[in-house]
Amino acid sequence: MLQKKQRDKHACFVAEGPKVVREFITAGFTLRQLFTTDTELLSHPTASLIAEHELSSISYLTTPNICLAIFAIPTQKHLPDSRLKVALDGIRDPGNLGTIIRLCDWFGISSLLCSKDTVDCYNPKVVQATMGSLARVNVEYLDLEEALANSELPIYGTFMDGDSVYSNALPEQAILVMGNEANGIRPNIESLISQRISIPRFGALQATESLNVATATAIILSEFKRVTVTK
Amino acid sequence: MLQKKQRDKHACFVAEGPKVVREFITAGFTLRQLFTTDTELLSHPTASLIAEHELSSISYLTTPNICLAIFAIPTQKHLPDSRLKVALDGIRDPGNLGTIIRLCDWFGISSLLCSKDTVDCYNPKVVQATMGSLARVNVEYLDLEEALANSELPIYGTFMDGDSVYSNALPEQAILVMGNEANGIRPNIESLISQRISIPRFGALQATESLNVATATAIILSEFKRVTVTK
Repeated sequence: MLQKKQRDKHACFVAEGPKVVREFITAGFTLRQLFTTDTELLSHPTASLIAEHELSSISYLTTPNICLAIFAIPTQKHLPDSRLKVALDGIRDPGNLGTIIRLCDWFGISSLLCSKDTVDCYNPKVVQATMGSLARVNVEYLDLEEALANSELPIYGTFMDGDSVYSNALPEQAILVMGNEANGIRPNIESLISQRISIPRFGALQATESLNVATATAIILSEFKRVTVTK
Repeated sequence: MLQKKQRDKHACFVAEGPKVVREFITAGFTLRQLFTTDTELLSHPTASLIAEHELSSISYLTTPNICLAIFAIPTQKHLPDSRLKVALDGIRDPGNLGTIIRLCDWFGISSLLCSKDTVDCYNPKVVQATMGSLARVNVEYLDLEEALANSELPIYGTFMDGDSVYSNALPEQAILVMGNEANGIRPNIESLISQRISIPRFGALQATESLNVATATAIILSEFKRVTVTK
């Protein structure tokens, strides 16, 4: 199930731990199978009691946590598009994608567009990092260049030499592009960006070269959304 | 070296990979020993050539990355205090502490106060996540309750029921307290907080309960610092 090929074939994904599993059930995901070491969780019709060592052998966590659930990957989420959309150009780290999905959920952004080489959102590490937010964000894998070229929305991207995100008047309707952890936004995507923004650095000159992409996304989304409450 | 006791005894810590090791050397940390599989890195007087399997056996990374360095823990960093300070009440996740140290560096905050049960900043996972920022932030472990009680600065803390961080006039001089991943800020620390703030949630009612503490720190620090450039 750790392989995307296997997840696609069986159209299911894994979530672990009572809190995360409960969030997915509450969000309406279809539980196919629940394996648990706790008899109190056996009330669910698909639940099977397993031993600690069996949970360890199927778990993706360093410290297995009571239960492992297999959910069906929903065919479509039927979420309305949000006015602000986020586009990811080659995000590779599962923790970063998970954090960004959680941020989108927090800021009411249902539309997350991902280049085809962005890490799969049903990767177990992404699922654990989203804490159930995955249920409320529509993660779409597509040809990002084509999608941006066909969009009529203003397209924002983060660059070291962009205008300060604090002094820019940010619109409520836009697409925000965030780039790969090591290489940033690819040239073919960069050429489609109409607004280059950056997060000002306040530290000393020799300071860290860049913020982590999930952290930068947090700051920029906050700037986009603060406009809607402070104006 | 994974044990704090061992790090304290030998007064040294581990950093891995050419990029991270280079950042610590540039930042002026004293390199005690360098183990590398790459002959090009042998120019350093303390360098030893080792085999891939030897690097694997001493590395803390899932994928060992060319070199592992042992640096001396500096006795004092001689950094001037910053006007804005961050205080952490029991942060346990090394990745979160690493991200917060990197954020402090970005935003020019040299003073990071940590409760004694906050994860050690020389933990290998913290070191890898800071990317050298550790050199430019003074991380002090102390009795946080006592430190806050003796401070004359306004003390800000993040709570679900706090005032919106967007509508608050934030001062340039303050202490921002961030709480533990699962339990938030402890009651004895909470009673010392003069300003309760929160990050507004824009998503649906059933949205994620909270943002990750590092992500929340990013948003709040950005709000504190934007004041200094937009007023």
